[in-house]
Amino acid sequence: MPSAPARAALNAFPLTPLRDDRLDEAALVRIVERLAAAGVDAITVLGSTGSGAYLDRAERARVVRLAVDAAGDVPVHAGVSALRTAHALAFAEDAAAAGARGLLLAPQSYQPLTDDDVAHLYADVTAATELPVVVYDNPGTTRFTFSTALYGRVAALPGVVSLKIPGVPADPWAAAERVAEIRTAVPTHVGVGVSGDAFGAAGLIAGCDTWYSVIAGTLPEPAVRITRAVREGRPADALTESERLAPLWDLFARHGSLRVTAAAAEHLGHAAPGCLPRPLLGLGPADRAEVAGVVDRVLDGEPATRP
Amino acid sequence: MPSAPARAALNAFPLTPLRDDRLDEAALVRIVERLAAAGVDAITVLGSTGSGAYLDRAERARVVRLAVDAAGDVPVHAGVSALRTAHALAFAEDAAAAGARGLLLAPQSYQPLTDDDVAHLYADVTAATELPVVVYDNPGTTRFTFSTALYGRVAALPGVVSLKIPGVPADPWAAAERVAEIRTAVPTHVGVGVSGDAFGAAGLIAGCDTWYSVIAGTLPEPAVRITRAVREGRPADALTESERLAPLWDLFARHGSLRVTAAAAEHLGHAAPGCLPRPLLGLGPADRAEVAGVVDRVLDGEPATRP
Repeated sequence: MPSAPARAALNAFPLTPLRDDRLDEAALVRIVERLAAAGVDAITVLGSTGSGAYLDRAERARVVRLAVDAAGDVPVHAGVSALRTAHALAFAEDAAAAGARGLLLAPQSYQPLTDDDVAHLYADVTAATELPVVVYDNPGTTRFTFSTALYGRVAALPGVVSLKIPGVPADPWAAAERVAEIRTAVPTHVGVGVSGDAFGAAGLIAGCDTWYSVIAGTLPEPAVRITRAVREGRPADALTESERLAPLWDLFARHGSLRVTAAAAEHLGHAAPGCLPRPLLGLGPADRAEVAGVVDRVLDGEPATRP
Repeated sequence: MPSAPARAALNAFPLTPLRDDRLDEAALVRIVERLAAAGVDAITVLGSTGSGAYLDRAERARVVRLAVDAAGDVPVHAGVSALRTAHALAFAEDAAAAGARGLLLAPQSYQPLTDDDVAHLYADVTAATELPVVVYDNPGTTRFTFSTALYGRVAALPGVVSLKIPGVPADPWAAAERVAEIRTAVPTHVGVGVSGDAFGAAGLIAGCDTWYSVIAGTLPEPAVRITRAVREGRPADALTESERLAPLWDLFARHGSLRVTAAAAEHLGHAAPGCLPRPLLGLGPADRAEVAGVVDRVLDGEPATRP
């Protein structure tokens, strides 16, 4: 198996809980405080999991401000993706003013985007902000697929510090080869982080420096354990813990991670019922019951005390 | 060949031209005036062609107001699609206040939507507005695919007056069969309109009552001729005219209709260079030259005098 990276960091993606379709500020603060206390290395609000795409400018600025205040010493990054470049620029300005320490930018699309459109988007945003920018490759929601060559083109822009890639091959050697291929295409100072929680442990072991994690935003403890195990040179422990969470990864694959984490947060009382922005209704009763059962079993099986 | 419908209407979708990434009000007014003068039956602003997805609330309200004033007696419909139901409701309220005579609503998505999400979206919007609502099925941009059963479920809502379907089969009998199948699934008062300009003539001949037309928003004359030919019982003339425009349909298929019509409008001086919202750069120089050549040939070959 490939050797573990020197540093493996956990960047947690919390939900932005709503109540009656409005920002539930108290719930957001509690969620962010809980992540900071659990020992995540960074927090990214307003990613896909944070429903950034659904919130207006004022709501987004408020989310960043609340999260920065609640996170204490833990750095908060803010998603600033938008269909229009001008809006991403406005969100970036607001995020900086609210104390964000980094930006997450995806090529969100309505009309399909070309490589040139995307390269200019990143050039425009990085030129306008002093904050480091994470390039967010999430073809499932953006419908844009980065080539490795475009990774290189965008990563060469001043201000780009990391790529958030959408998973790695299941085979450990193939995963390490894929991460190495990306690293060859991008400047050495640019990090490569894995997303797709089922691939978190495998991605870190394959040489990704960061796990951009959905589950860490709602159930941070197992994600912290996985990340620490890799960091401390215990990859087998990381894989065992990830395997223990397989029923969650299965639910993510079936329903999408957002609907599952929203149901989990509602089940645990971290968010009010119906915490997603309409038109997203969330899971139906049977699927919710299944999520609750899986979450309870995962937490009951925890090595540490349930918080 | 199936018999022509008693009434065939042309609903034209104009661009929303920008200049330096801001609304070009004068150009929008000229475009809308030109459509009204050309004899289109209705005008829909802020559809996909009108870049509705990229504009903020104030811009959208302004576009509707300007178009209503410029269109004279021609009714103006307004696209009110949004990722979030609350925003679609706000856009609908603004459109009504600005004098729109109908709304166009697509299930725009970031997270994939379920049938229940979409049905509730339409229920929420139709319940909140007195304006008639056109259900906009555009899987290429929304990534949501309606089943015929969901057409029926949504069309049964009070306030829904028409479905905008994304094309018909190429074979005339298959096209007529598909339109008949949809008509069977929806209440008789709900219209069925075709989009996908290459299918405009075939769709009207197959029994669609309306052509929701991109090309009519930029080059209205040939689209008016096609629609009148069908209305007057001359389906062969409609197909001949549509065939004459085949080089345009080919460009639409290769680049998407938005980038092609934007390049056409810029070539004809109807819009300033770079009229699309960033990050959409529009076509490159070689493709623009090809569009200009096709547009000039189409207009040179017009039976009527070029306006």
